[in-house]
Amino acid sequence: MTDLELMAAALAEAEKAAALGEVPVGAVIAKDGQIIAAAHNTRETEKNALHHAELLAIDRACKALGGWRLWQCELFVTLEPCPMCAGAIINSRLKRVVYGARDTKAGCCGSVTDLFALPFNHRPQIEQGLCAQQAQALLEQFFASLREKRRGMPRWKPPVSGQYLNKKGE
Amino acid sequence: MTDLELMAAALAEAEKAAALGEVPVGAVIAKDGQIIAAAHNTRETEKNALHHAELLAIDRACKALGGWRLWQCELFVTLEPCPMCAGAIINSRLKRVVYGARDTKAGCCGSVTDLFALPFNHRPQIEQGLCAQQAQALLEQFFASLREKRRGMPRWKPPVSGQYLNKKGE
Repeated sequence: MTDLELMAAALAEAEKAAALGEVPVGAVIAKDGQIIAAAHNTRETEKNALHHAELLAIDRACKALGGWRLWQCELFVTLEPCPMCAGAIINSRLKRVVYGARDTKAGCCGSVTDLFALPFNHRPQIEQGLCAQQAQALLEQFFASLREKRRGMPRWKPPVSGQYLNKKGE
Repeated sequence: MTDLELMAAALAEAEKAAALGEVPVGAVIAKDGQIIAAAHNTRETEKNALHHAELLAIDRACKALGGWRLWQCELFVTLEPCPMCAGAIINSRLKRVVYGARDTKAGCCGSVTDLFALPFNHRPQIEQGLCAQQAQALLEQFFASLREKRRGMPRWKPPVSGQYLNKKGE
């Protein structure tokens, strides 16, 4: 499969996430041009902070290959990896990472920081921008729809200290 | 349980890793001073790049609490978190992290970089040095033993380009 076909598969995964009401991010891992793992963000559905598309794909690739060194593999992901996923890319020795849209709030391939420029024990080849417009459009559509749904609803936030005081202030 | 008791539990987890022939790192997550998740590094045993103690403990804590926001929880880990685990700490909104030994090669709480000083959307309270000597001693003992075992054995490395050429150089 070509890079474009692999990113199209990652975008199809992102659409699965959107259908679940999840932030639409999808990823595939390929070896010799063939997909060996595919995943999409399921943080809300599975109630798990680790269930980003990249982490799930790396987990599946390790299981598929029976080893933790993915040095022959390439990751295609629709959004710039966060610190956790960039760290997992380093830890799994992925050879090459191709991502679509930039993430100005959490991206670790140059947006907030560039983890791959630091002296860790592995540095993958990084490419940005493939199908970035489609990936960005999916995200914008999702967040516009979420804002619409949540209009007037309270946002989750941790209770402020003292919020549970009784009338006596105890 | 006190901080010292919680770190002792993390050290006991690290010893379980050592017994498996794994780099001895252990972690526990506590809520209201009680352990809700405990784990140790099983990267080699499970052949999975994600199986660091902290990541496994966060996964178990999310499952135990039925949610991905661990904002009421504290992580005790014997070694300074790597980029992947530091990112997972941010993503899971852990309130406080206490770690033992520093990791000069991969630590992301100040050694290689300080991920918690960057403008991500969560910043936990970080404390270093509790039982650091015990954690460091476990690691040194493990690596000394590993060097002894591996003396004279070839190290794994990816094949050099051209290594598989036939006699004609094809």
